[in-house]
Amino acid sequence: MAEYKAPLRDMRFVIKEVLEVDKLWSALAGTREQVDVDTADAILEEAAKIAAEAVAPLSREADEHGCRWQDHQVTTPPGFKEAYQTYAEGGWCGLGGNPAFGGMGMPKTLVAQVEEMVQGADMSFGLAPMLSAGACLSLDAHGSDALKQTYLPKLYDGTWAGAMDLTEPHAGTDLGMIRTRAEPDADGSYSLTGTKIFITWGEHDMAENIIHLVLAKLPDAPTGSKGISLFLVPKILVNTDGSLGERNAVTCGSIEKKMGIKASATCVMNYDGAKGWLVGEVNQGLACMFTMMNYERLGVGIQGLGAAEASYQNAADYACERLQGRSPEGIKNPDRAADPIIVHPDVRRMLLTMRAFNEGSRAFSTYVARWLDIAKFSDVAAEQEEAAGMVALLTPIAKAFITDKGLEATLIGQQVLGGHGFIREWGQEQLVRDTRITQIYEGTNGVQAMDLIGRKTVAAGGRYFRQFAGEVDAFIQANSDSEELAEFIQPLGAELARLQQVTEAVIAQAERDPNAPGAAAVEYLHLFGYTIYAYLWARMAKAALAGGSGGEADFYRAKLVVARFFFQRLLPQTQALSAHILAGSDTLMALEAELF
Amino acid sequence: MAEYKAPLRDMRFVIKEVLEVDKLWSALAGTREQVDVDTADAILEEAAKIAAEAVAPLSREADEHGCRWQDHQVTTPPGFKEAYQTYAEGGWCGLGGNPAFGGMGMPKTLVAQVEEMVQGADMSFGLAPMLSAGACLSLDAHGSDALKQTYLPKLYDGTWAGAMDLTEPHAGTDLGMIRTRAEPDADGSYSLTGTKIFITWGEHDMAENIIHLVLAKLPDAPTGSKGISLFLVPKILVNTDGSLGERNAVTCGSIEKKMGIKASATCVMNYDGAKGWLVGEVNQGLACMFTMMNYERLGVGIQGLGAAEASYQNAADYACERLQGRSPEGIKNPDRAADPIIVHPDVRRMLLTMRAFNEGSRAFSTYVARWLDIAKFSDVAAEQEEAAGMVALLTPIAKAFITDKGLEATLIGQQVLGGHGFIREWGQEQLVRDTRITQIYEGTNGVQAMDLIGRKTVAAGGRYFRQFAGEVDAFIQANSDSEELAEFIQPLGAELARLQQVTEAVIAQAERDPNAPGAAAVEYLHLFGYTIYAYLWARMAKAALAGGSGGEADFYRAKLVVARFFFQRLLPQTQALSAHILAGSDTLMALEAELF
Repeated sequence: MAEYKAPLRDMRFVIKEVLEVDKLWSALAGTREQVDVDTADAILEEAAKIAAEAVAPLSREADEHGCRWQDHQVTTPPGFKEAYQTYAEGGWCGLGGNPAFGGMGMPKTLVAQVEEMVQGADMSFGLAPMLSAGACLSLDAHGSDALKQTYLPKLYDGTWAGAMDLTEPHAGTDLGMIRTRAEPDADGSYSLTGTKIFITWGEHDMAENIIHLVLAKLPDAPTGSKGISLFLVPKILVNTDGSLGERNAVTCGSIEKKMGIKASATCVMNYDGAKGWLVGEVNQGLACMFTMMNYERLGVGIQGLGAAEASYQNAADYACERLQGRSPEGIKNPDRAADPIIVHPDVRRMLLTMRAFNEGSRAFSTYVARWLDIAKFSDVAAEQEEAAGMVALLTPIAKAFITDKGLEATLIGQQVLGGHGFIREWGQEQLVRDTRITQIYEGTNGVQAMDLIGRKTVAAGGRYFRQFAGEVDAFIQANSDSEELAEFIQPLGAELARLQQVTEAVIAQAERDPNAPGAAAVEYLHLFGYTIYAYLWARMAKAALAGGSGGEADFYRAKLVVARFFFQRLLPQTQALSAHILAGSDTLMALEAELF
Repeated sequence: MAEYKAPLRDMRFVIKEVLEVDKLWSALAGTREQVDVDTADAILEEAAKIAAEAVAPLSREADEHGCRWQDHQVTTPPGFKEAYQTYAEGGWCGLGGNPAFGGMGMPKTLVAQVEEMVQGADMSFGLAPMLSAGACLSLDAHGSDALKQTYLPKLYDGTWAGAMDLTEPHAGTDLGMIRTRAEPDADGSYSLTGTKIFITWGEHDMAENIIHLVLAKLPDAPTGSKGISLFLVPKILVNTDGSLGERNAVTCGSIEKKMGIKASATCVMNYDGAKGWLVGEVNQGLACMFTMMNYERLGVGIQGLGAAEASYQNAADYACERLQGRSPEGIKNPDRAADPIIVHPDVRRMLLTMRAFNEGSRAFSTYVARWLDIAKFSDVAAEQEEAAGMVALLTPIAKAFITDKGLEATLIGQQVLGGHGFIREWGQEQLVRDTRITQIYEGTNGVQAMDLIGRKTVAAGGRYFRQFAGEVDAFIQANSDSEELAEFIQPLGAELARLQQVTEAVIAQAERDPNAPGAAAVEYLHLFGYTIYAYLWARMAKAALAGGSGGEADFYRAKLVVARFFFQRLLPQTQALSAHILAGSDTLMALEAELF
C-alpha cells in the first residue's frame, strides 16, 4: 500500500488561493486573535506528520486485529492507545475547543484539514477524537457552567473521551421512539435505564474516562421527539475535586461485528440506573444535538474525503508502477515487456474521476466550514444569519454527496488495482469497507436528502436556494467577461439555471403530491452537489489561472486539466439526474407493499 | 437475514413468456432430445431446493470461518464438503456437460437459471462447480479423446473438480507475459514449472482430485500471446485404469486474504516440474480458452445477478418489517408507533432500482444464453454464425453490466437496511464483499469494455452492432401499432437511435485518435447495456400485457410497473453517458504520468 501523504499543497490552495479563508480569519472577531497564516501552516505541517507517522502505519494491522470485547471491557488494537496518547499530548483533541475551558479555539476551516488527514490515515482511529469533539460542542453550547468546568478541560486534553448515545434497537432514524428513561433523583441528578446500540467508541481503553451524552425521556415527557432530553453520563463518576470516583452503572454489553471500521468499537451500552446530569433544557434534547450535528455531519463527509484521497494516492502509485499491456499510441516503455497501466485512457479516466471529486470535495468541505466559522465567530448579526442559512442548506449535501463520491472513489481505486485491489495486502479493500459506513451513520444519505428537499427546500419555500444561487450568480456576473474562464462560466450558468428550474418544479410538485419530495430527494441532492462542485471548480480554475507560470506551473496546469475533466466528463450527469427527478413519484407508489 | 428463495416464477416468465426458449429447445437439433418444458421445470424446482436448503444456510458461517491453509492443504468451511457431495450426487456438476462423456447436455438457457440460484445462495460455493464446468468446456472442445475419456466423466460426476490457472504475479490482463514453462518429455507429456496466482479453488478438500488447466510456454515459443499453450495438470496423477496414482508436483503455496468470497480458496499454485498434457494445439492456448471464456464471463455476470437478487429479497423483507417514521401521506399503521419503511418513496426507489435491474439482468443473461445455445446446438450454419456474432458482441456487456448493476444492487440493499446493513448479522454486507470480485476477475470490467469497443465495435466496423440493431428495429416495427406498448416502444426507438449515433461517432473518433476507444469504453458499454435492457423491458412489458388478468394478474401488473419505472427513472442515464462518451479523450491524456 502507498504511504499516506497529506495533501498539504492542495489544502493551502483551497484555503489561501480559492476561498481566501486566511483573510476571513483576520476579519472575524472570534478568530483574529487565535489564528493567522503562519500558525495555520505550522498546525497543518504537524498534523500531516502525526497522520502519516503515528496513525497511518497502524491502520492495516488494526483492521485485521479489530477491537476485542471481554467482560464488558474493550481492548483496542495494537498501537492505538499509544497513538491516542501522542495525539492527545499534541493538543489535537481540543483543537476546535473553547479556549475558556482549555481548547485551542481554532476555526473549522483549519480543523477540517486536520480531520481530513487523520481520517485519511485511519478512519477507525479518527472516530475517537471526532466523537469527543462532537460531545464537547454540545456540552459547551448547552451544559451548565459546572458541567463544563468539570468535563471540558479533560475532554480537550484527551485524558477523557466522549461518546454520543442516540440509537436504540427499535429507534434509529426515528429517535422519537426511544425508550431509555431518566428518573429525577433528589440531588438534581438523574438515574438512566435503557439500552443504546451502535455507539461508536462507547467503551475502550484509550482514555481514563468516557463521557456519554445520552438521549433519554423523563417519566412525564411528551411522546415523540418533543419528549427527548439530553444527559451527561460518565463511565466513572467524578469526585468534586475532579478525581475519578466510583464506576457508574453504564456498561458495554457487546460490540458489533461489522463490514469495516473494525478497529473501532461499535458498542451496545446498557444503562442500569446510571447517574447522569441534564444538559440544556428538559425536552430540548434534539435541539441540543443540532449544534453538534452540523459539525459532525460535515465531519462524516470529511471522513469520506480522507479515504477517497488515500484511495487516489494508492491507485495513482499503482498505475504508474504496474506494467501490463501497451499504450494505444504504441510502445512507451521499449526496455520492458509492458508499459505502466497509466498509459491507458480508461485508467486515467478512473484516476481523474477520483481526483476531480476529491479536490472538489476538499474545496466544498472547506467552503461549508467557512460558513460554520462565520456563523460561530462573526459578531455581525446579519453575517451570522446568512451563514446559518448556508450551513443549513449545505450540511446535508456535504455529508451525503461527499460520502457518496467518497465510496465511489474507494471502489474506483480498487478497480485500478484489479485483483490486487480485492486482497487485503494492498489496503485498498479496507478503504471500501471503512468508507461504506459514512453513507449510513449520522443520518443515512437518504435522510440527508429528505432534510435537504423537505425542510431546507420545500418548507423553506426555496429561500436558502436563492441565497446560494445569488452567490453563484454574482460570481458568474463578475467573471462573464473573462475569455479564459468562459469554458467554465458558461456551463456553470447553464447548471445553475437547471438547478433553479428543478428546484421550482420540486416545490410545485410537493404542493400536489406528498410523496413527490421523497421520490426526488436523493437525485435532487446529487444534482445540487454537482452544481456546487461546478461552482467551486470554476473558482478553482480561476485561482489556477491566477497562479501563473512560476515554479509551480505544473500544479496550476494540472488543476486546469482536472477542472476541464470535471466539466466535460462528469458534469453531464446532471442531465440524467434532472430527468429522474422530473419523472415524479407515480411509478414508485403504484405497487402495494405485498408485491415487493 | 431473509431466507433465499429462488425466483422461479420470474425465471419461467423469461424462459416461456418473454424469450420463448422452450420453443427454441424443440427446434434445435442438439437440444430437442435432451430437454422439454416438463424436464426443465423439474430441474428448476430441484435446483431451487438445493440452493435454498443445502447451500444458502451455510453461507454466513462459511464467510466467517473462511478457508484454512496448512501444509499445502486447504480445509473448506464447515458443511461445504457435504454440500458439494449432495450437489455432485444430484448430477449438477455435469448439467451442461457433453452426454458422450456422462454430462446431461442441458442448454445454457436452463443451466443459467441453476447457476443464478446456486450463486445467489453462496458465491464462494458456487465458484467450485463454475470453475469445473469451465475446465470441462475447454477440455471437451480441444482435448484429445484420451484426455476426455479419462477426465470428463469424473469431472461431470463431481468426483474430481477443475481449476483454471492463468494469472501470474506480473501477468494478469496481459497474459502474453506469463513465464510458466512447459518442457516436453519423452512420453509425450510435459513438465511444468512456474507460479500461478489468484487460482480460484486451486486446492481444496471437496473432491478427490483437482484437474488444473494451465497456461504455459514451450521453450521455443514465440514471445507474447502467440506463444501460449494450454495444459492439463492433475493434482494426483491418474493411472491407466482410472484409479489415482502418485501426487503430481503441483502444490498450493498459500491462499489470499480477501475482501469477500472468503469461503473460497484463492490459491498461489507452484509447479515444480509437474506432469501435464497438452490440450489443443501448441501455441493455441488462448484460443482454447475462448470457448470456455464466453460461458465463464456470462457465468460471472450471473454471479452478480444471483447476489443482487438475494440483496433485493433481504431488503424488501426488511422494508416491510422495519417500523420507523411515518408515511408522507399520513399515518398508515395507527396501532403501532411507526409505519414500515416501505411507505417512504425513497425506500421504494431503492427497491425498484434493484428490481428493475435484476429482472432486466435475468432476461439479459437468458437472452445471451439463448444465443450460446443456438451457436452450439443448431445444425444450420447461418444460424450458428449469426448466433456467434451476437455472443461475441453481448458477452462483454453481460459480464460487466450485470456485475456493475449487481454491485449497485448489493450496495442499495445495504442502504435500505441502514446500520443493520453494515453489521455482519444481517448478511447484507457479505453480499457487497462477495459481489465486488465479479467486476474484477475473468477480465476486469474495463477490459470487457475495451473488448466491446475495440474488437467488437471499431475493429468490426460496427457489423455486430448492426446485427443487434436489426433485431431491435424489427421488434419496434412489429409493435409500432400497439397503443398499449407505445410508452415503451417510443423511448426504445429513441435509445436505439442514440446508440447508433454514438456507435458511429466512436468508430469515427477511433480513426483520428488511438486513445478514443479507451476513453469511451466503459461508458459505451453502459450505454449499450441500458439500451439492451430497454429492449428486453419492452419485450417483458409486451409479455406482461399478454399475461392477462387471471389468477396471476398481480404478477403481470407489477411487471408493468417495474417496466415503467425502468423507462422513466433509470433509462435517462443514457443522456449523461452519451455526453461523457462524445467528450473524447483530450482531458484524459493531457497530463504527464508524473502529475498523477
